[in-house]
Amino acid sequence: MAPSAVQVGADDVAHLPLKFDGKANGANAKHVENIQMEAQDKTQYVLKSYRCLIADLCQQFNMGHPGSAMGMAAIGVALWKYVMKYSPKNADFFNRDRFVLSNGHACLFQYCFLHLTGFKNMTFEQLTSYHSERWDSYCPGHPEIEHEGIEVTTGPLGQGIANAVGLAMATKHLGAVYNKPGYEMVNNMTWVTIGDACLQEGVGLEAIQMAGHWRLNNLCVIYDNNQITCDGSVDMCNSAEDIDTKMRASGYNVLNVEEGNWNVEAIVKALITARATEDKPTFINIKTTIGFGSAKANDAGSHGAPFGKDEVANIKKNFGMDPNKHFEVPQDVYDYFREAVPRGQQLEKDWNALFAKYSSEYPDLAKDLQKQMKGELLDDWQKYIPTKDSLPTAPTPSRKSAGLCCNPLAENIRNFMVGTADLTPSVNMAWKNKVDFQHPDLRTASGPNGDYTGRYIHWGIREHAMASVSNGMAAFQKGCILPVTSSFFMFYSYCAAGVRMGALQSLQVIHIATHDSIGTGEDGPTHQPIELAALYRAMPNFLYIRPCDSEEACGAFMAAVAAKNTPSMISVARQNTVQYPQYSSREGVQKGAYVFMEEADADVTLIGVGAEMVFAVECAKVLKEKHGVKARVVSFPCQRLFEQQPVEYKREVLQYRSKAPRVIIEAYSVNGWERYADAGYSMHSFGHSLPREYVYGRFDFDADKISDRVKTVVDDVRKEGIESLRASLGI
Amino acid sequence: MAPSAVQVGADDVAHLPLKFDGKANGANAKHVENIQMEAQDKTQYVLKSYRCLIADLCQQFNMGHPGSAMGMAAIGVALWKYVMKYSPKNADFFNRDRFVLSNGHACLFQYCFLHLTGFKNMTFEQLTSYHSERWDSYCPGHPEIEHEGIEVTTGPLGQGIANAVGLAMATKHLGAVYNKPGYEMVNNMTWVTIGDACLQEGVGLEAIQMAGHWRLNNLCVIYDNNQITCDGSVDMCNSAEDIDTKMRASGYNVLNVEEGNWNVEAIVKALITARATEDKPTFINIKTTIGFGSAKANDAGSHGAPFGKDEVANIKKNFGMDPNKHFEVPQDVYDYFREAVPRGQQLEKDWNALFAKYSSEYPDLAKDLQKQMKGELLDDWQKYIPTKDSLPTAPTPSRKSAGLCCNPLAENIRNFMVGTADLTPSVNMAWKNKVDFQHPDLRTASGPNGDYTGRYIHWGIREHAMASVSNGMAAFQKGCILPVTSSFFMFYSYCAAGVRMGALQSLQVIHIATHDSIGTGEDGPTHQPIELAALYRAMPNFLYIRPCDSEEACGAFMAAVAAKNTPSMISVARQNTVQYPQYSSREGVQKGAYVFMEEADADVTLIGVGAEMVFAVECAKVLKEKHGVKARVVSFPCQRLFEQQPVEYKREVLQYRSKAPRVIIEAYSVNGWERYADAGYSMHSFGHSLPREYVYGRFDFDADKISDRVKTVVDDVRKEGIESLRASLGI
Repeated sequence: MAPSAVQVGADDVAHLPLKFDGKANGANAKHVENIQMEAQDKTQYVLKSYRCLIADLCQQFNMGHPGSAMGMAAIGVALWKYVMKYSPKNADFFNRDRFVLSNGHACLFQYCFLHLTGFKNMTFEQLTSYHSERWDSYCPGHPEIEHEGIEVTTGPLGQGIANAVGLAMATKHLGAVYNKPGYEMVNNMTWVTIGDACLQEGVGLEAIQMAGHWRLNNLCVIYDNNQITCDGSVDMCNSAEDIDTKMRASGYNVLNVEEGNWNVEAIVKALITARATEDKPTFINIKTTIGFGSAKANDAGSHGAPFGKDEVANIKKNFGMDPNKHFEVPQDVYDYFREAVPRGQQLEKDWNALFAKYSSEYPDLAKDLQKQMKGELLDDWQKYIPTKDSLPTAPTPSRKSAGLCCNPLAENIRNFMVGTADLTPSVNMAWKNKVDFQHPDLRTASGPNGDYTGRYIHWGIREHAMASVSNGMAAFQKGCILPVTSSFFMFYSYCAAGVRMGALQSLQVIHIATHDSIGTGEDGPTHQPIELAALYRAMPNFLYIRPCDSEEACGAFMAAVAAKNTPSMISVARQNTVQYPQYSSREGVQKGAYVFMEEADADVTLIGVGAEMVFAVECAKVLKEKHGVKARVVSFPCQRLFEQQPVEYKREVLQYRSKAPRVIIEAYSVNGWERYADAGYSMHSFGHSLPREYVYGRFDFDADKISDRVKTVVDDVRKEGIESLRASLGI
Repeated sequence: MAPSAVQVGADDVAHLPLKFDGKANGANAKHVENIQMEAQDKTQYVLKSYRCLIADLCQQFNMGHPGSAMGMAAIGVALWKYVMKYSPKNADFFNRDRFVLSNGHACLFQYCFLHLTGFKNMTFEQLTSYHSERWDSYCPGHPEIEHEGIEVTTGPLGQGIANAVGLAMATKHLGAVYNKPGYEMVNNMTWVTIGDACLQEGVGLEAIQMAGHWRLNNLCVIYDNNQITCDGSVDMCNSAEDIDTKMRASGYNVLNVEEGNWNVEAIVKALITARATEDKPTFINIKTTIGFGSAKANDAGSHGAPFGKDEVANIKKNFGMDPNKHFEVPQDVYDYFREAVPRGQQLEKDWNALFAKYSSEYPDLAKDLQKQMKGELLDDWQKYIPTKDSLPTAPTPSRKSAGLCCNPLAENIRNFMVGTADLTPSVNMAWKNKVDFQHPDLRTASGPNGDYTGRYIHWGIREHAMASVSNGMAAFQKGCILPVTSSFFMFYSYCAAGVRMGALQSLQVIHIATHDSIGTGEDGPTHQPIELAALYRAMPNFLYIRPCDSEEACGAFMAAVAAKNTPSMISVARQNTVQYPQYSSREGVQKGAYVFMEEADADVTLIGVGAEMVFAVECAKVLKEKHGVKARVVSFPCQRLFEQQPVEYKREVLQYRSKAPRVIIEAYSVNGWERYADAGYSMHSFGHSLPREYVYGRFDFDADKISDRVKTVVDDVRKEGIESLRASLGI
């Protein structure tokens, strides 16, 4: 099928060996044909070399994923040789096109083209370290953001396409803020390759829907359509779908390339059409053959295993190459690609020149853009955190407290982009006069609705993509945008894989998880998180912070905003929580845990957390009055921050050397608290649907009952020592 | 738009007040019209009563979700009065149509129709307990499987539609196995209502794709299209989609009903068409108005909050009802619905009579069907678990061990339905001569591919729906089918919400999670689970079992198959694990932990788990030889099973009263192990892409290094007591 009739800009074809003017039948047809043949021959030679290189790279250590890297050869040549704007000598060039390999197992595809086009770290030595024992290889089994030329870490399927949507959103947003007539400071494309998986994974499908909604015409989804997955033919699990029609119905411009294995020109034409497409993302359906050129072509066997020595030799013979040469990159193949270096340098030069002019015409904007490009916040965030004396003293839902902190940050600091998975009325993240991030032409029932300068995002009921797309925004010139997501805590189980990818990539995203614990109430056990905190507390490079009141919410935001390389989750309650201005401390939160109510020679340390702090405080009172037991109270909003404190501080807060037991009180599974506590008053089952004022009581969360149990613990420990608690931990 | 021209069976319209013969323009048009008007009037009165009842039920305790329950009134009448086959006096009637409320917040919709049609537990008193303080209410905030007439627990959006796909698969499968000419023993429909959310949530989109692929013509998706979500107009987050075209392109028969607020007949006609549709699932797009009849009609404000007293009165006035009457259900409304009781009894009678005939003609099949209906396995599973002496003694990947256990079970016991999220070559769950669950007409590149009798499922790259659809299969006459899912452990983070819903509903599903721990190797940190076990170990009613060798894998399967009301995850390694026939014990696994290598007067207890058992065993040796330290080893495959043991057993295994420290060795986050161990040799970061033979070493998982650290711990404890470890736990 021919690409649609979108006009191709002259600028866009500048890199092409020939123009696609559609006039090949005219007077100069023969001439054009000759040039085509010449370019064609060279290109075909490049494709062959590349494919043999992939086969060698997998064969070397008898591991790896050759199939789709080989299948996508022509796509790679089209992108890196002809279409993408990038600068190999400065991988971070701001206005570069972004490329995301959502089918991350095909990482050799990306590594090879980075090498061939001259990215400085991707030396030949590095390229051949793929699957070696080298700890410092730049060629891990899936692309990783740490390495030059890699925009995001991909591999878990569906994540990359979601990241790409985020990257494209970032461009649209920054472009809307900074571009002026004659000054297209930010106008890069985002190209993302996908296999069949990203069209099956839920997170991919959510992200695809979003990009259609926001009409991200700077996004091009390149479908490596080889119809093979690990299990075999795609028909075995997806036989009924007409993908082109489906994508059109999702708001995409759909282009097809039938000869995707070798027809670089057809692919280039489609890619250029994508860049020129207005008001819609583009989906290019490119027919390819997995393992093209091998005996395992079109066979799942070429997906995740090398071909074997003999077959690698055969592949080379098939391609007319020398089977005795390995890892061969002929100089003319380098020559073919290395023009990318000066081209990239010119791109940078042009952009820098434009920026210089822009700076004199729009000095304030230019200053801001420069700041954002460096990943700096545009204003001093500390001044927007509410002061202690401005906070409410009457009981307040901590979700409201989170809004109190976040709203001024979001309103005043333009790096913040805040959104919710369709829970605006519940999560308190919308500030007054917010503008929605929307296509400027969007009209809803209530009229116009935002534009691309907007920084409030209606993510729809798509939690997983919310998290994963946010990662993409955060990865766009890291620090440039600070995404804040929000939903009920329970629904952060939907996006656990996305949240994890943020932690793994050291991307700062702040997740506001409201309606935590059983206090969520009548919505019932489906909506009451019990075990989820255990996951986020165990996740490396992640802060799960559960503040007990407004002051602690301030501390939580201070910790989260300060953590430039670590995503956070601020976990807050639906219901009113008592405010403790006399005890709670924002500084304490930033240390993870701190003494909330001290008591000399205490018989027990009670650990209170978040919405259940009230039980610790009240229990301490009842213990004294009813049982004559002296209790101190520790507030413990964040385990990971506490772990980072010096041993002395930890010992002091928890009185590790004291014989008095420590008891954690939290309406979650107790798992993980045993490091800090000798006994836990916790949940041993899922919750129950009851109005919030009854649900705690139903699970014996009641100061009087808790104090009776704590008294028993104190007595047992006096009699038999702390070790006696071991086998019966969990009271 | 008119429903498509599918023939409607005479049988299907038997319950209708009039036939939709399409001849209303003929000679008897007037007559038909009169009947229609009469039925119409009555029906409209019923709709009004129902809507006022919903408004009252939410107003009562000033909580609840009235909007879509009111909007769907006509859909409910069409289903319960005219189309669905069910028996109020026997909610578990085997061949009943299944109904799933995927938009679970609209639970009052379901509760009201259960009450009106005479389900015995759903008394008026119960109905009015919605959002009351009653612990034993049958009307929780979202439908829960424990209660009569509820097929699955719904609420977290996207789950219900996935469950419905599973229910429809169960019917197709059992029908293919048991139905004979003239004996349609299993042929029920599955009806599922969805709101906009299920068309946005990834798990819903995955499930929709699956049903299209499997051509589940017994599934009807009823789209309550009110174009409103919590944030307002759906256009704010989904403006570009042509849903009808998209669903057609996904393999659905698409029908439209424009007058969904009141035109019961049009809905009935569409539903009947759905039942008669061949070879495709049906999607009925029904236009409705959220909060229909109220001042907040078509307003997000009616979604999750009551209307207020005055507005409830207004609603009643709008509908011509008495504003001073509350919870009014006129007798003639009951009369209108209660014919469902004898109708249901007749359905049962007919089915029982048919079954009697079937039993004499196909006695073996009838016996099996009866067994499956009772939720019993069709054969003695214990005899298929490999005996100890049949197991490999050379190092074997524990994923292979899992296959050794599961394959004979799956092959021989027809309750098992085993599938994988596109990892057949990796997870070892396919048995010889397996037949795929597929539409019988499916032809792939390699020819015909299975039929509905098949019990091996290619889930595609859709982990979340794999888990949630499996819940639906498990919920179909509970115990009738035992679903086994499989994927890499890391990708069970994609379906955490689905796995949880299984645990919450006490549905037996066995998840085989391969490639656990960092041993996964070169695929890198994106594929190496570090923190995920913390989630599954903390999850109530869930068994996370991590066997160390083939014998322990047998124990894991024995525990998992025996746990009729608890889902399990068997977590196994990609790489070779040493076999310990002299130490490992299937009985031990079933107790969660047990003494692996005893040592009198040990200086330390090493806790080994799964693929890292080898480090514990080797470390014990090195400790003795290099340091003269005596170590005993405990194998600890499952924390929850261990928790269920008597205190004495726990104390004995872990020697809680001993002064010798306990050290856990596992390449995960240590969180949660502190209950059992005094120190942990664990992961403090994400992993790294390195071939499996190097990756452990990179993180100092090496018997020599571990033993040095353990020696220090032993020395420290000797000097300063176990308490000295507290602040520095994690070595």
